[in-house]
Amino acid sequence: MKKIVSTSLLLLSMTLFGQAKEDSIQFNTISKEILNNGKGYVELKDLTKNIGHRLSGSPAYEKAVQWAAQRLRDAGADKVWLQDVTIPVWERGKESLKITANSGRWKTLKMLSLGNSEGTGGKDVSAEVIMVKSMEEYDKLPAEKVKGKILFFNYPFNQSFIETFRGYGDAAKYRVTAASLTAKKGGKFAIIRSLSSAFDDTPHTGAMRYEDNVDKIPAVAIGSTTADELEQLLKTQKVLATLNSNCGMKGEKASHSVIGEITGKKDKSVIVVGGHLDSWDVGEGAQDDGAGIVQSIEVLRTFKKLGIQNNHTIRVVCFANEENGLKGGLQYGKVAKDSNEKHLFAIESDAGGFSPRGIALDMDDTKRNQIKSWAPLFIPYGVYNFEGKYSGADISPLQAMGVPTAELAPDSQRYFDIHHTEEDTFDKVNRRELLLGAVAMTQLIYMIDKNW
Amino acid sequence: MKKIVSTSLLLLSMTLFGQAKEDSIQFNTISKEILNNGKGYVELKDLTKNIGHRLSGSPAYEKAVQWAAQRLRDAGADKVWLQDVTIPVWERGKESLKITANSGRWKTLKMLSLGNSEGTGGKDVSAEVIMVKSMEEYDKLPAEKVKGKILFFNYPFNQSFIETFRGYGDAAKYRVTAASLTAKKGGKFAIIRSLSSAFDDTPHTGAMRYEDNVDKIPAVAIGSTTADELEQLLKTQKVLATLNSNCGMKGEKASHSVIGEITGKKDKSVIVVGGHLDSWDVGEGAQDDGAGIVQSIEVLRTFKKLGIQNNHTIRVVCFANEENGLKGGLQYGKVAKDSNEKHLFAIESDAGGFSPRGIALDMDDTKRNQIKSWAPLFIPYGVYNFEGKYSGADISPLQAMGVPTAELAPDSQRYFDIHHTEEDTFDKVNRRELLLGAVAMTQLIYMIDKNW
Repeated sequence: MKKIVSTSLLLLSMTLFGQAKEDSIQFNTISKEILNNGKGYVELKDLTKNIGHRLSGSPAYEKAVQWAAQRLRDAGADKVWLQDVTIPVWERGKESLKITANSGRWKTLKMLSLGNSEGTGGKDVSAEVIMVKSMEEYDKLPAEKVKGKILFFNYPFNQSFIETFRGYGDAAKYRVTAASLTAKKGGKFAIIRSLSSAFDDTPHTGAMRYEDNVDKIPAVAIGSTTADELEQLLKTQKVLATLNSNCGMKGEKASHSVIGEITGKKDKSVIVVGGHLDSWDVGEGAQDDGAGIVQSIEVLRTFKKLGIQNNHTIRVVCFANEENGLKGGLQYGKVAKDSNEKHLFAIESDAGGFSPRGIALDMDDTKRNQIKSWAPLFIPYGVYNFEGKYSGADISPLQAMGVPTAELAPDSQRYFDIHHTEEDTFDKVNRRELLLGAVAMTQLIYMIDKNW
Repeated sequence: MKKIVSTSLLLLSMTLFGQAKEDSIQFNTISKEILNNGKGYVELKDLTKNIGHRLSGSPAYEKAVQWAAQRLRDAGADKVWLQDVTIPVWERGKESLKITANSGRWKTLKMLSLGNSEGTGGKDVSAEVIMVKSMEEYDKLPAEKVKGKILFFNYPFNQSFIETFRGYGDAAKYRVTAASLTAKKGGKFAIIRSLSSAFDDTPHTGAMRYEDNVDKIPAVAIGSTTADELEQLLKTQKVLATLNSNCGMKGEKASHSVIGEITGKKDKSVIVVGGHLDSWDVGEGAQDDGAGIVQSIEVLRTFKKLGIQNNHTIRVVCFANEENGLKGGLQYGKVAKDSNEKHLFAIESDAGGFSPRGIALDMDDTKRNQIKSWAPLFIPYGVYNFEGKYSGADISPLQAMGVPTAELAPDSQRYFDIHHTEEDTFDKVNRRELLLGAVAMTQLIYMIDKNW
């Protein structure tokens, strides 16, 4: 009996060893296929150069919808469809910001109105600029000092965090709340220092939000060096600024998220992999989030190309309207809930197509620990960090429904230099870095499909 | 007695905890200082834009020597000096490569002569091109098929390796040996496909070597897409090529490595941190190895700025002539040996200023394991991989003398897109990535200085 037990244990350990070895071989096959034959980089070039930026509601976004559907068919999806989504429409229009000080000369500053903000309606709005360096400083300012003025929130991006997402998160409240805070004390409009890790004059747009029952005054961003120059000027001179802008919300529109899948061979429960198809209306939306879109399509293509027998349905979702409404993610979650379709897992790539370093896991400890136990398989691919406990915005409605969710966690050092700017262009993406992200997602989905 | 033992153990574990905590605080202080106040990025801009590429023996290299000495003084070195090194001088001069096929039209190809190779002496050398895809294929070619021809070694960079250094190492023999192999079978000159991870037409230079007693025929590199086009052409047509080049060795010259140090407070044993000051004669030598130079100077500046009391001497060495002779590294090793100066440790940064991912350790297992035991301190900074067992070329003479050596191991995905090319320019370097490399080296040297 003792002998039999020993033999069983031996067989078990051999089996486990054999299993790990088989997985390791499959990881290598996936990696080689994508690094050598991956189409994501060429597809991203096509998306960014032939369609370019694609804010929800724009004609370019509608082109991107057709583009994504075709790419999913090309990749071998068994089924491709468009999911109806009603999206808000925001348009920028012409805009300019000028300042003048003692010299009397006007200087035009590089700037971008913040997304979802209202402009000046094409009229000049002028006033004196006053600066605060922090929220605390603003809170202490009496309303009479703000009334009739332009508020310049000059809070610098905190460079001390190793993960730049923490610096971004730390500064984000300035972008989101500056306008309403300024309006509540009677200011004319708000200028913020961009949420940027770079020391350049590139302004970063991004979503802001108006509080209910507060005047919708304009809010614009300027680049880091422009902010530094304005700060210097304000030390010795009275500065007047004039904003003329035409941006604003233009109602709603019917649009679509794009979905493609390969049907599960064992059951129809769903594994989602996705990114968002929309971008801001500047640059080319290359890192944010063209990268996530082409990586997700690469996952599907690789399963199909290698003939991996997926137990569960593997579904690529190219979400609409992440940037200024999250309507695509919300609608996907609603449809999933209403149809009672079982979702096993969802992962998003929306942190850029940089070298993958980890996978953030937003799920219970049992599942988290199971994925962490696979770490030795991932480490040869540079993917070592499974400590993050968050997931992508578009899949947050799934997460709220109890679906285990995750996000690809690439190296974050370069992202916030170009995020939401004219500089988020194809040349900022490296082929191998982009494809390695797709490798890590395919490997993870292979493991989850097989073990869950 | 039992009680006493327990208390001692408790005290010991508390002490260890306190120690680890103290180190962790110091790691954070170092990181904050460099990320917020580091000068390496601005210094690299100055080096690359105001001096540019700086091959050993060129006037630009001599300017870089003065530049580095001044930067070390600015950083607070107690002592700065130039170490005499006799270096080989290689010059490129004008060069062109043209091909023609059935159409009769000549097409000029982007190309670079390989470093240390001899040119055609300004004369046209023409012949038919024949292609091999691998060394094995070349070995099988009878000499009569090579005689009088131009050999095109079209071996592609292996994209399957996750660490691109492995792909580079795999292909390097083509660059190093193509000329002599071709000469031995009577060929006129060799063309190689560049050692490049990119799919573009950028040619990569780099050192080649002539075998003794073999004709010194020319060898040139072409970019990946140019190589692909030539391969396609050769499938259906006879291709003639003409090379006209003027490169060659021009004797030797007296030059210098640049050294700066802060003296040890406890003893004078030496910890070396360095990179190489020379570069190839194209681009700006930004990632290779301007990055390593400014990171090394940043280490010294940070010790000085933070007032860290270094037990041992911390010495920055900016080595001469790594690219085409290694004379700086060899001379440094010789002087260290002759003077019997005790070297405790040496680390080089010569793999680009990308996000650090690990530190390669070339030393005995006791020391290696001690450094590995510090991994938990490094992981919050993204530095997790201590498995590499190699170190920089310039410190290989120290390694041969038994000094424990290491190399900063940054993310390798982008390096071989631009290595040894016109494209190795300042804009390819990211400020935070560069500085994080300096952070990791400073942290490691802090630990070694304190514990060895």
